[in-house]
Amino acid sequence: MNDSILQQTLHRIRPTDKTVSDAVTAHLNDLTKPPGSLGRLESLATQYALITGAPELSLPRKRIYTFAADHGVTEENVSAYPKEVTGQMVLNMASGGAAINVLGRHAGAEVFVVDIGVDGDLTDADNVITRKIRKGTANMATGPAMRKSEAVKAVEVGIQLATEAVQDGVTLIGIGEMGIGNSTAAAAIIHTLLPCSVNDIVGRGTGVDDDGMKRKAQVIVKAVSNNRPDADDAMDVLSKVGGLEIAGMTGVILGTAAAGVGVVVDGFIATSAALVALRLCEDVHDYLFFSHCSAEQGHGVCLEQLNIHPILDLGLRLGEGTGAALAMNLIDAAVKIYNEMATFSGAGVSGKQ
Amino acid sequence: MNDSILQQTLHRIRPTDKTVSDAVTAHLNDLTKPPGSLGRLESLATQYALITGAPELSLPRKRIYTFAADHGVTEENVSAYPKEVTGQMVLNMASGGAAINVLGRHAGAEVFVVDIGVDGDLTDADNVITRKIRKGTANMATGPAMRKSEAVKAVEVGIQLATEAVQDGVTLIGIGEMGIGNSTAAAAIIHTLLPCSVNDIVGRGTGVDDDGMKRKAQVIVKAVSNNRPDADDAMDVLSKVGGLEIAGMTGVILGTAAAGVGVVVDGFIATSAALVALRLCEDVHDYLFFSHCSAEQGHGVCLEQLNIHPILDLGLRLGEGTGAALAMNLIDAAVKIYNEMATFSGAGVSGKQ
Repeated sequence: MNDSILQQTLHRIRPTDKTVSDAVTAHLNDLTKPPGSLGRLESLATQYALITGAPELSLPRKRIYTFAADHGVTEENVSAYPKEVTGQMVLNMASGGAAINVLGRHAGAEVFVVDIGVDGDLTDADNVITRKIRKGTANMATGPAMRKSEAVKAVEVGIQLATEAVQDGVTLIGIGEMGIGNSTAAAAIIHTLLPCSVNDIVGRGTGVDDDGMKRKAQVIVKAVSNNRPDADDAMDVLSKVGGLEIAGMTGVILGTAAAGVGVVVDGFIATSAALVALRLCEDVHDYLFFSHCSAEQGHGVCLEQLNIHPILDLGLRLGEGTGAALAMNLIDAAVKIYNEMATFSGAGVSGKQ
Repeated sequence: MNDSILQQTLHRIRPTDKTVSDAVTAHLNDLTKPPGSLGRLESLATQYALITGAPELSLPRKRIYTFAADHGVTEENVSAYPKEVTGQMVLNMASGGAAINVLGRHAGAEVFVVDIGVDGDLTDADNVITRKIRKGTANMATGPAMRKSEAVKAVEVGIQLATEAVQDGVTLIGIGEMGIGNSTAAAAIIHTLLPCSVNDIVGRGTGVDDDGMKRKAQVIVKAVSNNRPDADDAMDVLSKVGGLEIAGMTGVILGTAAAGVGVVVDGFIATSAALVALRLCEDVHDYLFFSHCSAEQGHGVCLEQLNIHPILDLGLRLGEGTGAALAMNLIDAAVKIYNEMATFSGAGVSGKQ
């Protein structure tokens, strides 16, 4: 890694300023409810306030980036769907018909679809941001998924998009993905960076059967054995067994944290991107909202290892940013609670005995 | 019980028509996502469709009834807040400053506050529906909380309000409550109707300390011992150790189910009302959405006994209908997914291999 945009971004990331915490807690405790009785809504409001650095909150302006890329590892027959679905779903998202479009509208969030590595030409498509680094990764079972320089470029795409969003006035960014084969890549990253066995972390993805699960596990073992990703070098792991959309999401996290803005992480694949970001700079932690626990079995294992309690647990396993959109809705609710509730003194309500 | 409105309502409740289930599942599986990958959103859409009885869905029109009442058992010093707070919070809700107002607005739900038994005169207050049965219950530690005839009347208030809502075009009703002392009453109901020990079911309510928890447990043991509620007669239990707001919520559930409309149950106290409704007519089950698992320790125990997996788990312990409002938002999301997503054929996306 040269002293690149990536390095500059990592140097700009600072922990949130905890000094506003007392003022935020005092305000929450002055609202007409028993202290702490709104549970997660109160902690979400607090985290959001710490990120903004001010005890007065505005309703977030929300944008979701959904990164799409293909995976050479699909050659190993690790997915229930053909790889063509990646590009087809990009077009579906571009025309507003995918789940993320529906849930983005529901949450009042813009949804931007980014082709960062689809194995096909989507340049004619409207509503697709083209930032293709390469046409999908190589098959990690037989060699590195991509060059480290390509992984850095993909991360920098994410950093740049995060920067653009913040310049546009966005104050809460969600990340999601689409990429047939990417639950295998995410599992390989997590297996390498955390003490999780391959069997604990491999799941059904879009719906493979038991044999498919076995193939995924074998492919990961082979990929790790062949590529020897260095667990102390997250960019090495990302390039050897990761994916372009995962790198893009890592970049959004870094760029968002560097700009002092919060980022809502979607499910299993997005969590692998967050894990890479955390290894590159652990201070990004303060900026991360983990939206939900996926039905993909490795996600709960991974979140537990990271000591993270996600906001929702709805059995989702779609990705795209769908869980992030739903969690954004709850962050909105938390900010509204913070801003709109009456205080004990204002409403003439007696306090605790 | 005479052959009252209550009896007539119970006779009108039917299980939902499961024949639309196949059409609903077929539509969900035709949407551009792996089958089942939107987890709880898909099951919520299915339940909502079964309740409406049609495979075409409209976005719910939503109303929340928040019932307020006082509890004579507060004489036993079982709450962290003085009983005056019940009436004060009704006024706060009537002026739009309580958490339920904020979250009702967030969910696009009307919030109606009902004085069904506050120990005070609120007839001059705007925006309060006055249906007072009596000025709070009697102290259940020393005698029955109310007469059975009063409990029936309170249930019938709920039935009537549910009927009015349905006449107004409401298609999804939420229930919540406000009543200092009511976590003691709810615990007494649940302890009587389910095989839950007093210590498992008693919690901190609005925030009592360890001594307060002990007092609550002792009071419940005393109330059950003195009143001998008949576990085979849910109305007997409701009248002897229950509360007026709990009875009102039971009535809404019955009236809503009888009208073929769904009802969203809030937290611990609302679940005790649902338990009474289930004992009066188990077919109401099909119409119930259990919104969340409360931080009140007895709630998880009770839901587990009932084999219910609530939608959210956000550490809420406020009541008022706040969890119901948040869950309504997810039911809306589920209906939007059902209505707005593209199909595989429509979007030109390949299916499973």
